[in-house]
Amino acid sequence: MNYILKDENAIYYECGYSSDNAIYLQCGSESYFITDSRYAIEAREKIVDADIIISKDLLSSAREILKKSNIKKLHYDSKEWSVDSFSRLSKKSSIVFKKAPDLSHKKRIIKSDEELKILSKAATLGRRAFKNLAKEFNSRGFGSSEYSLTYSAKSILSDFGNYDLSFDPIVALNANSAKPHALPTDSRLKRGDLLLVDAGLKYKRYCSDRTRTVYAKEGFSFGIDQKFGKKRIQKAYDTVLKAHDHAIKKVRSGMRAKEVDALARGIIDRAGFGKFFVHSTGHGVGLDIHEMPYISSKSDIVIEDGMVYTIEPGIYIPDEFGIRIEDMVAMIDSKAVIL
Amino acid sequence: MNYILKDENAIYYECGYSSDNAIYLQCGSESYFITDSRYAIEAREKIVDADIIISKDLLSSAREILKKSNIKKLHYDSKEWSVDSFSRLSKKSSIVFKKAPDLSHKKRIIKSDEELKILSKAATLGRRAFKNLAKEFNSRGFGSSEYSLTYSAKSILSDFGNYDLSFDPIVALNANSAKPHALPTDSRLKRGDLLLVDAGLKYKRYCSDRTRTVYAKEGFSFGIDQKFGKKRIQKAYDTVLKAHDHAIKKVRSGMRAKEVDALARGIIDRAGFGKFFVHSTGHGVGLDIHEMPYISSKSDIVIEDGMVYTIEPGIYIPDEFGIRIEDMVAMIDSKAVIL
Repeated sequence: MNYILKDENAIYYECGYSSDNAIYLQCGSESYFITDSRYAIEAREKIVDADIIISKDLLSSAREILKKSNIKKLHYDSKEWSVDSFSRLSKKSSIVFKKAPDLSHKKRIIKSDEELKILSKAATLGRRAFKNLAKEFNSRGFGSSEYSLTYSAKSILSDFGNYDLSFDPIVALNANSAKPHALPTDSRLKRGDLLLVDAGLKYKRYCSDRTRTVYAKEGFSFGIDQKFGKKRIQKAYDTVLKAHDHAIKKVRSGMRAKEVDALARGIIDRAGFGKFFVHSTGHGVGLDIHEMPYISSKSDIVIEDGMVYTIEPGIYIPDEFGIRIEDMVAMIDSKAVIL
Repeated sequence: MNYILKDENAIYYECGYSSDNAIYLQCGSESYFITDSRYAIEAREKIVDADIIISKDLLSSAREILKKSNIKKLHYDSKEWSVDSFSRLSKKSSIVFKKAPDLSHKKRIIKSDEELKILSKAATLGRRAFKNLAKEFNSRGFGSSEYSLTYSAKSILSDFGNYDLSFDPIVALNANSAKPHALPTDSRLKRGDLLLVDAGLKYKRYCSDRTRTVYAKEGFSFGIDQKFGKKRIQKAYDTVLKAHDHAIKKVRSGMRAKEVDALARGIIDRAGFGKFFVHSTGHGVGLDIHEMPYISSKSDIVIEDGMVYTIEPGIYIPDEFGIRIEDMVAMIDSKAVIL
């Protein structure tokens, strides 16, 4: 298949290097990596399997290569290419451009053994970071604002600069945790608060992702067994945990993603919290923090061995609290294994 | 003008809030902010001037609004919209969709007095951070790797979590600085090294951007007067500094951006380093770290009062060293004022 890519992770997947201004072109058996002069040195150091072209105008260079090649059809990701770039690329070309939405994500949906090892290591490092974060919050966190706690989370997740982060960590207290993508505020951590942390790091460019919601008493941990002071919170917590455990236990290769979503959602619906579970059950994780398969109520994708995704049910009661419990799983021998 | 926006900063500019999944629609005198349920609470807290629509399918909601409206024409940024999203938005619609590349960047090219104040404050905080960074590097930096120095730079630029960063700081030593967008390595800072730092922070969402290249002797500072041990480096440094100073001194409102680029490039060319100045002289700065006006040899944009951009000439000798000196300037009363 002939194809053209622009996305950084999509390109990294092909040739082991990328930059924020690059195009990758696969024409028959020829591969081309096009970037600008700022990245010339690194590209030449790191890429072995593609011709490296340094250009002031990446699209023109791509057009030239296409013109000289004798290919008839070229696939491109219509989600990735802007109307503008695509029209510059394809204008007056004799090639047939075929829309291929999620072209790279589809290639990447089943992880290789090597990728599974890397993702497993990322998850292990992420889990260890949560342990270190609990120590830090217990010794210096009480009295600190969400801003400051978020900074601690960044420091510890990155191991003080050794790892990139999968995304900006979410550290939310009490009512702020009712926003699934909460931004930090001036609220300060007190003993007995509800504390939600959603964070991950990258190992060899692959992401980890993990959420815990805890009762922040003296000496708390990010373990999964949590006892809250309030009955209403405890009921929601136990429901989310049950949904999380049930989905992970019951999912099998061969199921559709919407059936996996239903495993978690059914538990929450039956407990009467259905309308407070406002997002889907999970998403694939790899080079991108959000990739295929999406575990949503609408997804017909069939789960297969080698897929890696999150299970992260939640209950969000506006102005009161939010609960989310998230782990990454890999499908191995037809079952979900927590990474 | 009727228009539709997807970019986070473009939307923030319109209504003072945004999220990573939002559409903004201006139809006649009506404004709409469409997002998903994860952002419902914050959107309602922060937006006053637009109708807030919470949707599971943003594009469908936008189509419905467009259908009910009686507008004939809608502008969209063809650089911002993907082929896929645009085709979903426009399919079978009776509205004429007009390409408007850089729609929001063009609206934002002249900064208001309020924006100039914010950008000036961002630059002041950025400058202060460089002073603090010099202290940190002098007391604990020698012997540390670029990774670890980059982490220090992140910590200090963010004031330990109080500010977001404009971008991941670049901290590069000796030959690594010859890559204009260097990634950190294991190289460790020694006395007498060449050290390049390019970093900025965000204040009220507006970016600062600054680069200094220094001779890292005991007690060094990020001041602009630097004496290097090697003649060849000193000659390059003095050339870059002269190009930087000359462009800032001579630019006037009414000039074209390519004339500003030529002010800096001319100095470097005449000193014989022309082929080592591998990028353009600068870029606009605002909500985005790279926006209009671009100060390149090809840009015909006319510089006007109220524009804010960087002047950042550089000389990069592969495998040897790189020099870059960068400041942000604002055009005020026809002249460039360093922020």
